[in-house]
Amino acid sequence: MSHVDLTKALASWSTDPDELARVSVDRSGVSPAGLPDLVVFAKDVDDVQRTVAYAAAHNVPVVPRGAGSGVAGGAVAGAGTIVLDLSGLNRIVEIRSDEAIAVVEPGVITAHLDEAAAAHGLRYAPDPASAAISTIGGNIATNAGGLRCVKYGVTRDAVLAVDAVLGDGTLVSTGRRTLKGVTGYDLTSLLVGSEGTLGVVVGATLRLSPLPVSTATASAFFATAEDAVAAVTAVQRRGLRPSTAELLDQATLVAIDEADGGDLHTRGEVFLLLQTDGYGAEAEMAVAEQVIRPLATSVETTTDPDVAARLVATRRAALPAIERHGRVLIEDIAVPRSRLAETVTAVASIAAATGVRIFVFAHAGDGNLHPIVLADSAPAEQVDRAVAAIFEHAIAVGGTLTGEHGVGVLKRPWLAAELGDPVLDLHRRIKAVFDPAGILNPGKAIG
Amino acid sequence: MSHVDLTKALASWSTDPDELARVSVDRSGVSPAGLPDLVVFAKDVDDVQRTVAYAAAHNVPVVPRGAGSGVAGGAVAGAGTIVLDLSGLNRIVEIRSDEAIAVVEPGVITAHLDEAAAAHGLRYAPDPASAAISTIGGNIATNAGGLRCVKYGVTRDAVLAVDAVLGDGTLVSTGRRTLKGVTGYDLTSLLVGSEGTLGVVVGATLRLSPLPVSTATASAFFATAEDAVAAVTAVQRRGLRPSTAELLDQATLVAIDEADGGDLHTRGEVFLLLQTDGYGAEAEMAVAEQVIRPLATSVETTTDPDVAARLVATRRAALPAIERHGRVLIEDIAVPRSRLAETVTAVASIAAATGVRIFVFAHAGDGNLHPIVLADSAPAEQVDRAVAAIFEHAIAVGGTLTGEHGVGVLKRPWLAAELGDPVLDLHRRIKAVFDPAGILNPGKAIG
Repeated sequence: MSHVDLTKALASWSTDPDELARVSVDRSGVSPAGLPDLVVFAKDVDDVQRTVAYAAAHNVPVVPRGAGSGVAGGAVAGAGTIVLDLSGLNRIVEIRSDEAIAVVEPGVITAHLDEAAAAHGLRYAPDPASAAISTIGGNIATNAGGLRCVKYGVTRDAVLAVDAVLGDGTLVSTGRRTLKGVTGYDLTSLLVGSEGTLGVVVGATLRLSPLPVSTATASAFFATAEDAVAAVTAVQRRGLRPSTAELLDQATLVAIDEADGGDLHTRGEVFLLLQTDGYGAEAEMAVAEQVIRPLATSVETTTDPDVAARLVATRRAALPAIERHGRVLIEDIAVPRSRLAETVTAVASIAAATGVRIFVFAHAGDGNLHPIVLADSAPAEQVDRAVAAIFEHAIAVGGTLTGEHGVGVLKRPWLAAELGDPVLDLHRRIKAVFDPAGILNPGKAIG
Repeated sequence: MSHVDLTKALASWSTDPDELARVSVDRSGVSPAGLPDLVVFAKDVDDVQRTVAYAAAHNVPVVPRGAGSGVAGGAVAGAGTIVLDLSGLNRIVEIRSDEAIAVVEPGVITAHLDEAAAAHGLRYAPDPASAAISTIGGNIATNAGGLRCVKYGVTRDAVLAVDAVLGDGTLVSTGRRTLKGVTGYDLTSLLVGSEGTLGVVVGATLRLSPLPVSTATASAFFATAEDAVAAVTAVQRRGLRPSTAELLDQATLVAIDEADGGDLHTRGEVFLLLQTDGYGAEAEMAVAEQVIRPLATSVETTTDPDVAARLVATRRAALPAIERHGRVLIEDIAVPRSRLAETVTAVASIAAATGVRIFVFAHAGDGNLHPIVLADSAPAEQVDRAVAAIFEHAIAVGGTLTGEHGVGVLKRPWLAAELGDPVLDLHRRIKAVFDPAGILNPGKAIG
């Protein structure tokens, strides 16, 4: 379709095949069938409403898009769709230091908001690995997590209010500018994590947090993943509240060393990066070190911000380092904290049984693992078997398919196994309330 | 109706008028018209499903009930209704110290859970003033807050998963046992705060937090509410994260002194109770004291737990002390933090203009005020004017009718003014998804 009735009312759009190809994919590796009909570069909320209303009237699927940095296929768009690119709505409308809130448009890059907040002594706590390239709108769509969320919460915990365009083009505002409020249902939390299937987020009011006055960092090595997880559990049982607790397995350490010439993998089997922050950072770290030492083969602590920044950068380098080895499937299971050690072991067993290369790093403090599957390291059916086994394990131990990346299209096959049919049916009926024509990102998130 | 087809299948129920009268009201002061038909004392989830399914089939409203400690009328039940009393489902099913979670039935008294968690070095952070008498199920229904939620979040932040019986009697489980998870929509947050209008919560998985190793407490007096609020703002701007920040006005101090023979009201106009906790409690309090001192007429700090406990008890005594003066309307507005001082002033102006006696205390750290209106202190139309003016002010400054008590029946008249008709319409359609027959607590929360 040419959609001329739509495009004549818009300032910016394209049907150029190269542009369409660019906006048809995200970082999931999913290849949609065919190219979208059109990409709309929204310049204001009117453009969004106009596009969605047109799509509803003509029964055309709309795929909202931020930076395209998603890894579950939530933003892939095939033939017969309109891509609604929100990256141009990128103003930080307001930062209020006395209220510790920010009002932003959805296309703001996450790291840019964090930097702008820092000028006020504040920060935007959720810090997905993609923060330098992903948008707030995308983070809201997937309820993005990150390293700091073990102490400071995920995206949903930071979103006070959203403006969203529903499936008929109506603009609604949910939530409020206050830190507390119980008038009405929590539609804000419902929209966060809905992957663009309930509404197109066109604005958000976000909670900011104080920049911590002090941060202490431990780097520890362990002989086994069990020991490393036991250390994290012991730290949390002791009443400590780490702000970061990241685990990297041997394969991941090797990959990082190969990429940057370091020697992490020679220093131990499993690496744990643990941070504490705030006024009690050093006192808390002193206790953490005591707790970790008997379980570790080595542990070092520092309050030097440069050393800490290098260690965090090393952790953030894990995925790019693995990606040098070939195409990856980025898994994202989360399990109850008490099942984390056995889950790391289970993933290793799955890798051994299928012959698939799998690297593991984890937000260990909240039981969220990223098994990174090297997609071409074994025959496709073995890779499929490995991925299925990982999901089945997660569900079997009371966990979830996805801790912070979303379902997109990649995890749809396991959705019913996790949610159950009655709950999935509720989802479909809720979607119909927000999007009666079924045109908002159909086939994503809830299948 | 006799409902014999229902009662013959139940172990425990009553049609005794005294029992029915007792379960027909809560602490809101709302008097429903007539008595309920029946009260069901649920002994297990089957009783709940059976009752709701029967009610749906016979189109009889069901009013879920915990301890009846609500103050907005969410649990009042009039003629032609069935009260579903969940207070007998009061087992703490599990507390896991390694995962820091609890699994509970809805009738568990909030303070009992907190005590049980303490045996594991943990606590249940949300601490509504009613914690000693209210139930977890009731707290979930209203998304209850409390003193500690300025640092540790409200009930919604502590609820990981719920089991709920929908309006057709179906049992569903939402959420998960993991700390993170983005599979599907956030139905858990949707059920929290829905005041029994979407489902009857029959079980919950709750997040626990470490007991703080140390707490520091400041008690400060100020010449004006503006100064007290300025002190809280300055503390938060400085990057401090108080765990309690409670403001009490002069009228409230007089009431407390009259009740317990103390001398608070002679020591200053406005009182602020501020606490910090964790490993940095004392360091944080030292900075807080520096920040507060220039604004206060006096400030004292302590780390003595007994002194701190007495100060917190004094704060908690505010409402009972005011209630000695007569029937009260407990308001619960929340405003953006930057509008708190002017809101305290506005409430005083409203009291002066209407001749109604209003006491104010506030969770100042999150902008949540409780103007306590003495209902018989002026003619009814003046009291109505005062209450309306308070709500109108809250909405005008970007605030909300209710920060933590819920809408119940008392705040329904102002619902549309806050939410707007399109959003209210979404609420009604969501309710129809969960409760097609419209029998779950009809007329509450969303009108």
